[in-house]
Amino acid sequence: MSRPPSSIEALIELMARLPGLGPRSARRVVLHLVRRRGQSLVPLADALQAVAATARDCVTCGNIATEDECDICRDPRRANGLICVVEDVADLWAMERTQAFAGRYHVLGGTLSALDAVGPEDLGLPRLAARIGAEGITEVILALNATLDGQTTAHYIADLLAGRVRVTTLAQGVPVGGELDYLDDGTIGAALRARKPV
Amino acid sequence: MSRPPSSIEALIELMARLPGLGPRSARRVVLHLVRRRGQSLVPLADALQAVAATARDCVTCGNIATEDECDICRDPRRANGLICVVEDVADLWAMERTQAFAGRYHVLGGTLSALDAVGPEDLGLPRLAARIGAEGITEVILALNATLDGQTTAHYIADLLAGRVRVTTLAQGVPVGGELDYLDDGTIGAALRARKPV
Repeated sequence: MSRPPSSIEALIELMARLPGLGPRSARRVVLHLVRRRGQSLVPLADALQAVAATARDCVTCGNIATEDECDICRDPRRANGLICVVEDVADLWAMERTQAFAGRYHVLGGTLSALDAVGPEDLGLPRLAARIGAEGITEVILALNATLDGQTTAHYIADLLAGRVRVTTLAQGVPVGGELDYLDDGTIGAALRARKPV
Repeated sequence: MSRPPSSIEALIELMARLPGLGPRSARRVVLHLVRRRGQSLVPLADALQAVAATARDCVTCGNIATEDECDICRDPRRANGLICVVEDVADLWAMERTQAFAGRYHVLGGTLSALDAVGPEDLGLPRLAARIGAEGITEVILALNATLDGQTTAHYIADLLAGRVRVTTLAQGVPVGGELDYLDDGTIGAALRARKPV
């Protein structure tokens, strides 16, 4: 049995480790790239090199940046006294897409976890606490995932900052366009407890 | 609204064009890579550069090669008078994994298509015809997909080589482990017509 060239096998193996890809889809992607050397393979290789050369973590908030600080931390118009705490850069992008938040962020990069030995320092929480005074923060909005780990971390941060700054969290309820029949009981219960006058 | 750095956006856009990925999964993959610069991003960029620098089409059969001819065409033990015609390098790899074929290949790189203006030259069919005499081929096995395009192309090749060499095709029937109840009627019909004494 002849095997693919070793450079191809190495590429397939690396691709197969990406989230959402497996050995089969990695083979498909690599063949697609090899077939389209000029249009796909070379541009993708160049784009990866560019990101590898320039992308780093914002020293202030943990967002992806191309300089020491990210675009948001360098934008004086975003200094409105609000910090939104998110688990991940993907969550930051999701918040930005809403165009409903004009403040700054703190990206945890994960959640507290005794099992995985993730402590407050790993999430940059001392750095977050220091920003409250340094940036004149008046409110910290916790936008963590509604998972057990996310909520545990949210409670820890709320305790940490209690008395120093107003701490709020995203409202829980029925998603826009959501049909009650398809929602889990927990969401409906939360929406009922948080009901509002019309 | 702040957008991701342009190098990141460019990478996401290229990733989203890969087969099986979309904008959402491309974002996930790129964040995964940026988070794991050393273990994932840099090795993947290097692997892509290596493939871009070395991978080319075998001048004889169309397989992926790192020299003018691929490993299989350069291996004298594979010169057994058999050529297996496949649509794609992925199909060649699938045949190789079976370890049931010890001859050489001809990779079409597609199927005949009047709509997409793919003619016999685009599939290297004159080159295939020339190999019959040059390599002392005694049998050409058509292992094309059991799709309309694949079968149309198979018939064209069978006509092209008729009288010059024995042309065979893969048997059609019930897949190994296949349950009749879940098979389409066409497959069951083909298996019935090709029934064999026990």
